[in-house]
Amino acid sequence: MEQGSYVRTDTPQYDLEAHFRAFDPVRGEPFGPEFRDASPEEVDEAVRQAELAFEPYRQLAPERRAAFLDRIAEEILALGDELIAIACRETALPAGRLTGERARTVGQLRLFADVVREGSWVEARIDTGDPEREPAPKPDLRRMLVPLGPVAVFGASNFPLAFSVAGGDTVSALAAGCPVVYKAHPAHPVTSELVAGAVRRAVAAEGMPEGVFSMLHGMGYEVGLALVRHPLIQAVGFTGSLRGGRALFDAAAARPAPIPVYAEMGSINPVFVLPSALERNGDAIAEGLTNSITMGVGQFCTNPGLVLGVQGEAWTRFIARLAERIVEVPAGTMLYKGIQEAFCSGRDRLRSIPGVRTIAESRSGAGVGAVIFTTDVGSFLDRPELSEELFGPSSLVVTATGAEELERVARRLEGQLTATIHATEEDLLRHRVLIDILQRKVGRLIFNGYPTGVEVGHAMQHGGPYPATTDARSTSVGTAAIFRFARPVCFQDFPQAVLPPELRNRNERGIWRLVNGELSQADL
Amino acid sequence: MEQGSYVRTDTPQYDLEAHFRAFDPVRGEPFGPEFRDASPEEVDEAVRQAELAFEPYRQLAPERRAAFLDRIAEEILALGDELIAIACRETALPAGRLTGERARTVGQLRLFADVVREGSWVEARIDTGDPEREPAPKPDLRRMLVPLGPVAVFGASNFPLAFSVAGGDTVSALAAGCPVVYKAHPAHPVTSELVAGAVRRAVAAEGMPEGVFSMLHGMGYEVGLALVRHPLIQAVGFTGSLRGGRALFDAAAARPAPIPVYAEMGSINPVFVLPSALERNGDAIAEGLTNSITMGVGQFCTNPGLVLGVQGEAWTRFIARLAERIVEVPAGTMLYKGIQEAFCSGRDRLRSIPGVRTIAESRSGAGVGAVIFTTDVGSFLDRPELSEELFGPSSLVVTATGAEELERVARRLEGQLTATIHATEEDLLRHRVLIDILQRKVGRLIFNGYPTGVEVGHAMQHGGPYPATTDARSTSVGTAAIFRFARPVCFQDFPQAVLPPELRNRNERGIWRLVNGELSQADL
Repeated sequence: MEQGSYVRTDTPQYDLEAHFRAFDPVRGEPFGPEFRDASPEEVDEAVRQAELAFEPYRQLAPERRAAFLDRIAEEILALGDELIAIACRETALPAGRLTGERARTVGQLRLFADVVREGSWVEARIDTGDPEREPAPKPDLRRMLVPLGPVAVFGASNFPLAFSVAGGDTVSALAAGCPVVYKAHPAHPVTSELVAGAVRRAVAAEGMPEGVFSMLHGMGYEVGLALVRHPLIQAVGFTGSLRGGRALFDAAAARPAPIPVYAEMGSINPVFVLPSALERNGDAIAEGLTNSITMGVGQFCTNPGLVLGVQGEAWTRFIARLAERIVEVPAGTMLYKGIQEAFCSGRDRLRSIPGVRTIAESRSGAGVGAVIFTTDVGSFLDRPELSEELFGPSSLVVTATGAEELERVARRLEGQLTATIHATEEDLLRHRVLIDILQRKVGRLIFNGYPTGVEVGHAMQHGGPYPATTDARSTSVGTAAIFRFARPVCFQDFPQAVLPPELRNRNERGIWRLVNGELSQADL
Repeated sequence: MEQGSYVRTDTPQYDLEAHFRAFDPVRGEPFGPEFRDASPEEVDEAVRQAELAFEPYRQLAPERRAAFLDRIAEEILALGDELIAIACRETALPAGRLTGERARTVGQLRLFADVVREGSWVEARIDTGDPEREPAPKPDLRRMLVPLGPVAVFGASNFPLAFSVAGGDTVSALAAGCPVVYKAHPAHPVTSELVAGAVRRAVAAEGMPEGVFSMLHGMGYEVGLALVRHPLIQAVGFTGSLRGGRALFDAAAARPAPIPVYAEMGSINPVFVLPSALERNGDAIAEGLTNSITMGVGQFCTNPGLVLGVQGEAWTRFIARLAERIVEVPAGTMLYKGIQEAFCSGRDRLRSIPGVRTIAESRSGAGVGAVIFTTDVGSFLDRPELSEELFGPSSLVVTATGAEELERVARRLEGQLTATIHATEEDLLRHRVLIDILQRKVGRLIFNGYPTGVEVGHAMQHGGPYPATTDARSTSVGTAAIFRFARPVCFQDFPQAVLPPELRNRNERGIWRLVNGELSQADL
């Protein structure tokens, strides 16, 4: 996602003297209390407490886990306007956006509470036995998902609420029955403290084991790496840069006992504008893209960083319209200094690449302006750096000579969170090959829409092949995110009294179970 | 699983001169044609052909993919007695066992054909849209599993049919829609050629794209590593040793774009015999364990390598009975020379550890005899090498002073495929903590049974935390194995005509779908 970072490359070891404070990127000044990197002992203590909490937490009745999630939602709402005001100050994001993000965070907690309450997410499977079978008796097998254990979660800078302390990774891990040790993003430590306080109050109010949630601060990678390397940590959720995500993935893979890392690292989210759609809706698409590129100063992992179309009059008109609209968008302040510097230097690097033209740049107001570059397919394919994400309000428009060149670009794309196709149905049927190619590259394909705006529901897939994520089999948004933190256990020939309730003959929770290959809610 | 291997440590590079032949371990002589390591060019060509086959193969109607799997089963049966005779000669396994293994292989192919035909495995999820929603319209989201792409599969030495050419990994990958490049185990190259021939005939008969299956030979790790490192390979299935599996895992994790590795690497499969069960059924358990330890000359990854109980008269009687029965079992020839040598040297190493006693060893007949060691909990916990798998007909019996020591051992266990508890219901309720601990360590918990004998069904879980496998979230036996080779893709606001049939309003395949959070087989 972001390319700028807080990493201190000069201090390979813990630096307990390195204090930091919240920073107001608009005023350009620090504020609030001092924070410091968690010490190795604090990391260890948080993980040990999480481990102690694991067994009692996972054994709680689902109703209690659900009530805990609902309570976190309530406690976040109870923080009121102060939360929004502090988050605005730390991130330069507008209050309206943060109010929406809070609603999403709360909605997400309640949705997972519903999933836990309903209970079918454990994917119970029962194959009944047959003691008479020849040549050997058939055993009774009952399988369900159980939580993995303590999970490390890393907050994202660009979603101080929905992908942070009580965001998607935390809530899906807690829903699955896993305690969470949360590493706060140093770009919004005060917001993090507020939300962590809400979580702690929910822990106390609902009588949860104390270690089920804890939060650590840290400026660089050291705290995070210590967390990922801790032998009691069983999985990792992360949203951030490719460099950061890969570092955690590598550390987890090198452990004596490797663990899964779910790192969402962003992408360039190509948008293909096919001929008939361009002809019919070019202006509207230029308008929609402008919003999608500049929304939140372009700080979304689903930001459309690449726009492709076929040369011709309609395409030329479309580019002109996009350029016109982009220059009208006021500049904005990015989340923090490092991210803004990374954007500016990346933008200037792009500008200097032969074959790349800067065709629009907004300059009104303070902060960074949105920028549109253009190039042709040949230059795009020649220069791998043009396929790299530039985190911020910019997009590269690539002109193809025809469908064949569009396919060529699609084939060369790395893994993406999304790809978007603007098309008429007629276009779609004519470009089936393109759609087939894109399906292999992405987690989500969007028709006549925009990649920004990730709906939280059952059918969302927010993920994609590497380097969009480190695990394309998973999603970090939507209810299916719960599966990241669970694994199956099978009970063979177990007596009813000792089986988990989900696997007993009497289906007291009324969940869906695969019984001898047939889905059913019935008792056995 | 096995600790012996064919690795040539002296040749880090490909050695195209290194020919090898099948070897009859009973007669101690090579036979049949010469085989040689696939060259890098051959590896590359096989993977490229698999990639070419991927798109047409995954787009086939499920009925055709199912017919292909059924046809492979038929072609294997058509090989008749020759297959059994050759497999016997290459592995020293008896004809009865191999006939059973063939039935299992064929049954597995047909079971996966049923899963593909039924179709609900794609886990379709539909959240219908709402264009009127405020503040933003709700998109229509439709998500399903799609195949990953070409898969590399490694055959196991100890299951020349069920975990080899057309075994569990191959069939689950083909069922998911993934082409397979299969690396044959050098311990049974002629059997592999026979089965590969059957698969190729099924490819031709059912009009499958040619590259959907190919087989490579190789003596050492080089061919396998080249396969795992090939950028077009998208996942790996492996059954074998910890050293081999970890090497493949590390290679896959170090790729520029990492891929999942499903390596099943065996375990020691602890068996806990609790007091009341010991009192009531000690003799029968000793009898059952003898069979489980010595079956197939102990060459199962679910072989019970560790037996635990509490000191006392009943336990002493049980150990004596087990020792009596073990010495009666005739010695047997192991799969190949390397594996037999590894067993013998491991056995002799164990024997020499202070605190370990050899209490029974069968010496009748040719080959290796079964052996039982005993020790106490203190010695067991002091010597980590006592927790390592010794692949072959042996088991270590550990005497505890009471329930607390049993729990202490359980807590210290690494990840296991299985754990077994012999108990009365009364025992179970009294040892709930032990069961809770074991649940965290294993893929499958067995009550009053034996870990060998892995049922192929819907509810089987053959996997477990590291080092039993490299991915505890998956199973390598049973229909849930198909999920290893698929990932979700979400279609947003797509027109009906372009959606995959599984996601259209009309549910023409009648599959189960999660529609707005409710499971349903209905049309929309």
